Amino acid sequence: MTRGRVIALEGGEGVGKSTQLKALSDLLAKRGIEVVLTREPGGSEGAEAIRELLLQGEEKRWNARAEALLFAAARSDHVEKTILPALERGAWVISDRFLDSSLAYQGEAGGLGISRVRDLHEFGSEDFLPDRTLVLTLEPSEGVLRAKHRDGEADRIGGRSPAYHGAVLAGFRKLAEQEPDRVKLIDASGNEATVTARLMAAIADLMP
Amino acid sequence: MTRGRVIALEGGEGVGKSTQLKALSDLLAKRGIEVVLTREPGGSEGAEAIRELLLQGEEKRWNARAEALLFAAARSDHVEKTILPALERGAWVISDRFLDSSLAYQGEAGGLGISRVRDLHEFGSEDFLPDRTLVLTLEPSEGVLRAKHRDGEADRIGGRSPAYHGAVLAGFRKLAEQEPDRVKLIDASGNEATVTARLMAAIADLMP
Repeated sequence: MTRGRVIALEGGEGVGKSTQLKALSDLLAKRGIEVVLTREPGGSEGAEAIRELLLQGEEKRWNARAEALLFAAARSDHVEKTILPALERGAWVISDRFLDSSLAYQGEAGGLGISRVRDLHEFGSEDFLPDRTLVLTLEPSEGVLRAKHRDGEADRIGGRSPAYHGAVLAGFRKLAEQEPDRVKLIDASGNEATVTARLMAAIADLMP
Repeated sequence: MTRGRVIALEGGEGVGKSTQLKALSDLLAKRGIEVVLTREPGGSEGAEAIRELLLQGEEKRWNARAEALLFAAARSDHVEKTILPALERGAWVISDRFLDSSLAYQGEAGGLGISRVRDLHEFGSEDFLPDRTLVLTLEPSEGVLRAKHRDGEADRIGGRSPAYHGAVLAGFRKLAEQEPDRVKLIDASGNEATVTARLMAAIADLMP
């Protein structure tokens, strides 16, 4: 059995991530690949319990460091209980957010530093990396407007300021520069099929 | 206003910790000191929510690394929301377990290593240290027997094997060797008043 692959889909608020997750997983399934769709924070029983702690409550419920530790704990459980077993049986895992969100949100935008947040991942998950991270990018103002239009009210993290979301995007750009083979920025403008085609092109080299 | 002090009371299962917490706090209150009694995991709203995740469920609910990250997240919240504000107003904080439990349980007995668990504390709480850690010690077999007698059923961590609890005690001994001014082993055998007197003697130099 060939080991599966892990694709992380990332991006700020309102870039069309949910639509593209579905499109990507349908296209992979048509090629006969078993797809496991998962998400962060969450993706396993324990991590979903941590997700509730992270996304509910007041903006100041957690300080930045406690928040980063909770994300790393949730990811440790997610990798162990959901991702590794799926890879072992040859499935592809598509995760709605993964490590690179922590690096961009808590590390870059939150001011903790990308390398310190990566250290927590090294501790919690032995630095397990996705085969490819696809970052859907739009100008942050446009993305935040789309997200507000959709949700009415955002969660603890989605509801932060445009400046914060601008810093998140800067974080993703930095990650794509540091690890160009693993992290790819994908233009999220244009119609859905166009964006899906860009995503598929960016993982073509991983296909069986 | 003189800044307060933090005393952590530690020890394996069944060493009489709860009784001594009460005795110590009563004696300090009699000296006119405002005492804040707290505990770990927990001690603040967010940390108590994490406590439920840590102590409930199956033994294998969390892997060792996720567990250590959750303890560090809870402690970050506890220090920020409960301990630092109490110290600022001059109160003494007595905590039923603190950092050194993480170092002895997850670091030493759990095999993660004391220094790596300390790194998480450095990240989460800027390496905030109690003024004194008092470790109540009994032969582990005796302590575990007392705890079983008391609880009927232990929680996820208290219920681990005698070998595990022996390694915890070894961890506390190592900490007392590494930081002899901060961490003191206190003989927990004998009657309650005798043990209380030993504890008070071990913090006499901190008194106002």
